[in-house]
Amino acid sequence: MRIDGGFWGELQERNRHAILPHITHWLDRTGWLRNFSTSPGRRRGREFSDSEIYKFLEALAWELGRSPSAELQAVFDETVALVADAQLPDGYLNTRFGRPGQEPRWSDLEWGHELYCLGHLIQAGVARARTGHPDDLLVQVACRAANLVCDTFGEDGIPSMDGHPVIEPALVELYRVTGDRRYLEQARLFVERRGHGTLPDIEFGRAYYQDDMPVRDATVFRGHAVRAVYLAAGALDLADETGDDELLDAVMRQWRRTVARRVYVTGGIGSRHQDEAFGEDFVLPPDRAYSETCAGVGSVMVAWRLLLASGDPACADLIERTLYNVIATSPAADGKAFFYANTLHRREIGEMPDPDRPNPRPTATVRAPWFEVSCCPTNVARTMASLSGYVATEDADGIQLHQYVSGTVADRFTVITRYPAEGEIAIRIDREIDDPWSLSLRVPEWAGSGATLTVGGHTWEVEPGYVTERRRWRAGDEVVLCLPMEPRFTYPDPRVDAVRGCVAVERGPLVYALESVDVPGVGSVDEVRVDAGHPPVMVDGRVVVRGRRVSVEESAVPYSARPYRVVGEDLGEIPLVAYHSWANRGPSTMRVWVAAC
Amino acid sequence: MRIDGGFWGELQERNRHAILPHITHWLDRTGWLRNFSTSPGRRRGREFSDSEIYKFLEALAWELGRSPSAELQAVFDETVALVADAQLPDGYLNTRFGRPGQEPRWSDLEWGHELYCLGHLIQAGVARARTGHPDDLLVQVACRAANLVCDTFGEDGIPSMDGHPVIEPALVELYRVTGDRRYLEQARLFVERRGHGTLPDIEFGRAYYQDDMPVRDATVFRGHAVRAVYLAAGALDLADETGDDELLDAVMRQWRRTVARRVYVTGGIGSRHQDEAFGEDFVLPPDRAYSETCAGVGSVMVAWRLLLASGDPACADLIERTLYNVIATSPAADGKAFFYANTLHRREIGEMPDPDRPNPRPTATVRAPWFEVSCCPTNVARTMASLSGYVATEDADGIQLHQYVSGTVADRFTVITRYPAEGEIAIRIDREIDDPWSLSLRVPEWAGSGATLTVGGHTWEVEPGYVTERRRWRAGDEVVLCLPMEPRFTYPDPRVDAVRGCVAVERGPLVYALESVDVPGVGSVDEVRVDAGHPPVMVDGRVVVRGRRVSVEESAVPYSARPYRVVGEDLGEIPLVAYHSWANRGPSTMRVWVAAC
Repeated sequence: MRIDGGFWGELQERNRHAILPHITHWLDRTGWLRNFSTSPGRRRGREFSDSEIYKFLEALAWELGRSPSAELQAVFDETVALVADAQLPDGYLNTRFGRPGQEPRWSDLEWGHELYCLGHLIQAGVARARTGHPDDLLVQVACRAANLVCDTFGEDGIPSMDGHPVIEPALVELYRVTGDRRYLEQARLFVERRGHGTLPDIEFGRAYYQDDMPVRDATVFRGHAVRAVYLAAGALDLADETGDDELLDAVMRQWRRTVARRVYVTGGIGSRHQDEAFGEDFVLPPDRAYSETCAGVGSVMVAWRLLLASGDPACADLIERTLYNVIATSPAADGKAFFYANTLHRREIGEMPDPDRPNPRPTATVRAPWFEVSCCPTNVARTMASLSGYVATEDADGIQLHQYVSGTVADRFTVITRYPAEGEIAIRIDREIDDPWSLSLRVPEWAGSGATLTVGGHTWEVEPGYVTERRRWRAGDEVVLCLPMEPRFTYPDPRVDAVRGCVAVERGPLVYALESVDVPGVGSVDEVRVDAGHPPVMVDGRVVVRGRRVSVEESAVPYSARPYRVVGEDLGEIPLVAYHSWANRGPSTMRVWVAAC
Repeated sequence: MRIDGGFWGELQERNRHAILPHITHWLDRTGWLRNFSTSPGRRRGREFSDSEIYKFLEALAWELGRSPSAELQAVFDETVALVADAQLPDGYLNTRFGRPGQEPRWSDLEWGHELYCLGHLIQAGVARARTGHPDDLLVQVACRAANLVCDTFGEDGIPSMDGHPVIEPALVELYRVTGDRRYLEQARLFVERRGHGTLPDIEFGRAYYQDDMPVRDATVFRGHAVRAVYLAAGALDLADETGDDELLDAVMRQWRRTVARRVYVTGGIGSRHQDEAFGEDFVLPPDRAYSETCAGVGSVMVAWRLLLASGDPACADLIERTLYNVIATSPAADGKAFFYANTLHRREIGEMPDPDRPNPRPTATVRAPWFEVSCCPTNVARTMASLSGYVATEDADGIQLHQYVSGTVADRFTVITRYPAEGEIAIRIDREIDDPWSLSLRVPEWAGSGATLTVGGHTWEVEPGYVTERRRWRAGDEVVLCLPMEPRFTYPDPRVDAVRGCVAVERGPLVYALESVDVPGVGSVDEVRVDAGHPPVMVDGRVVVRGRRVSVEESAVPYSARPYRVVGEDLGEIPLVAYHSWANRGPSTMRVWVAAC
């Protein structure tokens, strides 16, 4: 798939021209890149900072595969050389452990992130191998590191694993590009060792790093959200390559319950700041939504693997929800700042982040240029650069189109659309093939019964799921899918205590938000209620709702023996913004869920 | 005031006979007490563990003052001797810093808790001085430590303060019992230094330790809840002793806004687990209520000081709310386990805490015997032992009775009541005084217009606030205050997003809770809704509501384009329990706020 303009194309251009240069700047400025060449005593950054360089390399590898660039190639080559020089002869590579004056290697598996860093190194190598350079220096570095991991943590080695999964999917992926079964076996050992109290109990409990129960016994994703989804991705890769259907089914069951009970309307996961973790079922408070960008990235990785394994359109629905409303939300319009946590409710207008130093916290009033823990910008970059990988699949029967993105697919057809701004998606067949083949299009669950398909002059209603047209397609044939783009209210499951009595607004795949800059004269969006009797409509290209500004009688304590008196003032039509674009106009207050009146 | 039976008397007996022996056992078992006599390398516990010994000593001092005990006296004397032996000649006293192999003293003011520990040492000394032993060894130890603090942190000393306030009120209190103005001046310096970015910025921000703005400029309590209220207590003590009305007014304003917007219905404060902190206004999620027991203790300290300064009955109302529903909730019925955090909603039945080791987390499914950070048990103990100090005040005009507790006040009258089980409070004058004097009784805000007063055979309605009867009281005169004890629904301020559409139940000063053990056959209290059309009533001595068990249609994601269908099944009458007594029957699920139907 080659993306050509549109919403996703713009993200890729922003990534290439703004985000990647921005990351280059900050990896230098923070000294995290120099850690590979300076003495141990001058090392900067947290214990996992090496992984940012690797995710950056992965992003560059995908981006160079997408479209050459002398400039990006030079950055890539220099960085790979620096990393390769730092690798020890036996394959060990980490700037935080093992050198004089540092703690010994593998001495802090629960928090040290050594295998985590190597996992991201390997994923960068895999990206390079997949984009036409299977013998590249980066691939060699990755293999040397992976060999050391197998020597050290194999059947007769250290019987443990890393506190933060990611090496698991990385090793299976490296097996896929190299064919070396040792990597697959090592991934299996890491997945199977987890869940037996292998790592120490910690303040957050062993569920934090999914060491509370074996992957195949769990019933739901839990603990640290990024750890949970990276582990699930690894388990699915393993299940796929070993034909372990029991493991696949177990993760699928966990995923279904998680999506039904622990996912924000944006697709975000993780409702606890303290341990960056899932809450219990239906614990989805918008104001404490952590919804880490990286967890969104990992959630897409999981859903993609499940889609490949099952063909269930719910997987592609969640990818769409998460891409438009979490991953696309993180980077600022100019690509020079990011959300780490993606709250669904900002109550107070805070201070602007300091533009000259990494934000000390994952939360920020508006997007921050960098963070002390800056996992998200590089994760956004590698995802943007590889977006085309999530659009379509092919099997013996034909091609399945899961996401609607302008561009060409398999040189066989072109997708022409302004989606999600508009709902019409035209597919024009470019290349004629003698045999008939099936074109499958996903009708999103949110479309309800409002979608139509037009083929050869005939139009009919299509239901959510995949609609498949099989024929001997001719060049110039056109298929048009029309998705209903009227904005709509969304109601929460009554078990989500935190948003009882509230509604959200969606249009197509986009979640909308009420931002204070759009209700001038009103102190905070918390004073606004939406008239649930008037569905949202489009006015002059904006989604608007009708609403009231309310005030509540004050009391000495926020409790009373009689219901509170609330008085309201009509605000008329109130425009909303797409959630992914909020906070691009300076600090504001914001709500996705607004109390109904 | 001498407490004699009743609710508070039982708490004091439980403290003396169960809680204090339990603490003695665990301070030995954990090695925290031995830290004072062992070598630095064998030190156990967190950096603030010395403070537990000091709070324990404070509890013993109050308890011995209340009623002698050879056994408790021996424990007290031995412990004081151990502590005194560990004090260095210049007054320094801390088992974590300053000895060979340890970091130097005052090298980690933001996290080291050295001054915090000394603050609790001084408060123990003050308790000893106030209970008839102004020249006790413990008082001498406290004064030596305080002198060192003044020498080290005075006008020309280290221009900083501790990350965790408590030395501030302690120094003013020591000034009160010794008359040494240096202590008052040092407290002033500590209070005034805070809020100027004196300590480093940290991940939680400087608001965490109230170093974001000066005490007199703040508008609300914020940051770490215990730090916030201990600091406020110190500022109020300082304002009182220096006649600084501006400071008093500033703290009073902060308190009013805090109580109106940041206090749980139980009186608990702190709605964030991550940093044990206040959330923003109206952020009071019941399921993530941290409501630390120690924060409740500190909140009572603040409200008591404000009551003395202002006479505002709202202060005594909050003390009552907090004592019955936070502080009384912490200890188990047998006095051998404690809540650290006091949630208002338990969703899942977890595992029982390990009886043989300190709970690694502040949260526990039911009360835990001890914690790795075990500040709460000793804080409960010192509060229980000094409860009589919160009951009444005296001025030139007479006596003001703020809380209704069986016992005798100033040898002048006896309070006879079964409150809060029943609403009748009889006051019998015991001692005749020639001059007339005023007896003031607080009518709680929650009484609405349902309270009556009977004096000399006449009965009339009395409104919330203080009702004052001034006369020449004769021995045998009787005053009867009747408070309305019908259970009642309580409605939340509509700005508390987290409990929209819910009701709570209160009766007198007690908050009630729905506990799963009382709805057998229902999986979780989350399935229960309360019929808001039927007010709660008393049936066979229990508070009951009418309710339904509901089930909700399942969906792939917990959001839908149409409102969810909910079906219900009548559960008839459902008994509730007083919140302070929940979780005494094994693990359960529990809700204070229940969705209304």
